[in-house]
Amino acid sequence: MPSHIKTIKGSLAIVGLGPGLREYMTPRAMKAVAKAEYVLGHSTYLAPLEPLLAGKQVISSSMGKEVDRAKQAIDLARSSHVAIVSGGDAGVYGMASIVLEVLEHEGVEIPVEVIPGVTAANAAASRIGSPLSGDFAVISLSDLLTPLEVIEQRLDAIFTLGIPVVLYNPKSRGRPHNLGLAIGLARNHLGPETPVGIVKNALREDEAILVTTLGAMDESIDAVDMHTTVIIGGKESRIWRMGDDVKGIITPRGYHRKYVY
Amino acid sequence: MPSHIKTIKGSLAIVGLGPGLREYMTPRAMKAVAKAEYVLGHSTYLAPLEPLLAGKQVISSSMGKEVDRAKQAIDLARSSHVAIVSGGDAGVYGMASIVLEVLEHEGVEIPVEVIPGVTAANAAASRIGSPLSGDFAVISLSDLLTPLEVIEQRLDAIFTLGIPVVLYNPKSRGRPHNLGLAIGLARNHLGPETPVGIVKNALREDEAILVTTLGAMDESIDAVDMHTTVIIGGKESRIWRMGDDVKGIITPRGYHRKYVY
Repeated sequence: MPSHIKTIKGSLAIVGLGPGLREYMTPRAMKAVAKAEYVLGHSTYLAPLEPLLAGKQVISSSMGKEVDRAKQAIDLARSSHVAIVSGGDAGVYGMASIVLEVLEHEGVEIPVEVIPGVTAANAAASRIGSPLSGDFAVISLSDLLTPLEVIEQRLDAIFTLGIPVVLYNPKSRGRPHNLGLAIGLARNHLGPETPVGIVKNALREDEAILVTTLGAMDESIDAVDMHTTVIIGGKESRIWRMGDDVKGIITPRGYHRKYVY
Repeated sequence: MPSHIKTIKGSLAIVGLGPGLREYMTPRAMKAVAKAEYVLGHSTYLAPLEPLLAGKQVISSSMGKEVDRAKQAIDLARSSHVAIVSGGDAGVYGMASIVLEVLEHEGVEIPVEVIPGVTAANAAASRIGSPLSGDFAVISLSDLLTPLEVIEQRLDAIFTLGIPVVLYNPKSRGRPHNLGLAIGLARNHLGPETPVGIVKNALREDEAILVTTLGAMDESIDAVDMHTTVIIGGKESRIWRMGDDVKGIITPRGYHRKYVY
């Protein structure tokens, strides 16, 4: 075969691993990792995969090197089977878009598959009842790639609508005040009894869950870190109780308007 | 033991099965179904579970009987292990909220677990690249439980923001025109080149995928049915191409503003 004909023997899987524990990873995601000769990802996400990684080239990296990691994955995928992994769903604040952008830019025709996973919104919601039963929005408080004024504008519009909001990246060392800002905007449109769920390490080790309200949220703001998902309820959301216990949050779907139960 | 002391020997799992194929169900979801003595759900979602259902009481029902199904699940769960299943994630337009509402109303203290799944937004997105890479909203076009004017108000506000929108329940016999309405509202705020993804039966048998634009969407509106998820891109979304082929949709996360690649 003439050497100027490019033959691609590799493949690229962009894999969403779900919240963390292997019980919540799809078989399809595990299969893609098992098939890969190279596995790339942030070290936090690679740890639960340990038993699957024997005999593979594992390239673990730190946060903030996404573009380099995407380029490296594509280079390797020209001749090898490569899996690049994200926590949650790779298409939601994960590696999918940057990998596809670089792939398009480099014009390489590598077989590519995006494998969805359980994203933090759904993982966190499942731990506090059913706060996202109807319409909702997903907003990241990271102003690394989106200007803060755009984030504020989005939050304000969504709180005005009164639908629940899932906050990704609610806090980190570089932006400790964005959560306070978001809470302030929420209070302009939603009452103090509006439920707020704080889920740290959802369905991972060291999971911690707190259900509070917009009015009492100031006491809990220090409990939020970069591994936390915050869900601010909407106009119809309410605390879910069993006897005197707070069990979580329910956003009713509206059956109570149609049926008696 | 005196008969007036209520003993609960059962349990209730509210299970999200993901898009449909078993490859995309979490092991945790499968375990909950395997453990159950009773499995309740819509027949469409029960079919792929067939091999797991031997020896169980299977109660399959039709759409629109959610309240009855929730009551029945809770009654059975007083003394038996029960799994009530939804497609996708049980917390997103699924059975979780109504089951928890009835449980709270009846004041029964049954051990209950909500098991998250890959919801249609993520399943559909994964089949057309990475349309939901950043902030996005999830809106149902079903006006069965939410008044149409509220749905329109939400859509209008979100299209104004220019973030991608995932439309659940985009069309059914009872509401054939809501999708056209939504497209009309989108056109007030977004250009004709805005990408639209139409994913029917995502990650199930008979999957069909179409990527088009807001401007050309009228030609494709008939392809949408109740098993379809529609993703309308945001201001930054664009068609993803490889050579002359349309491969899907990319919503860039903004790395291009920070890095050269």
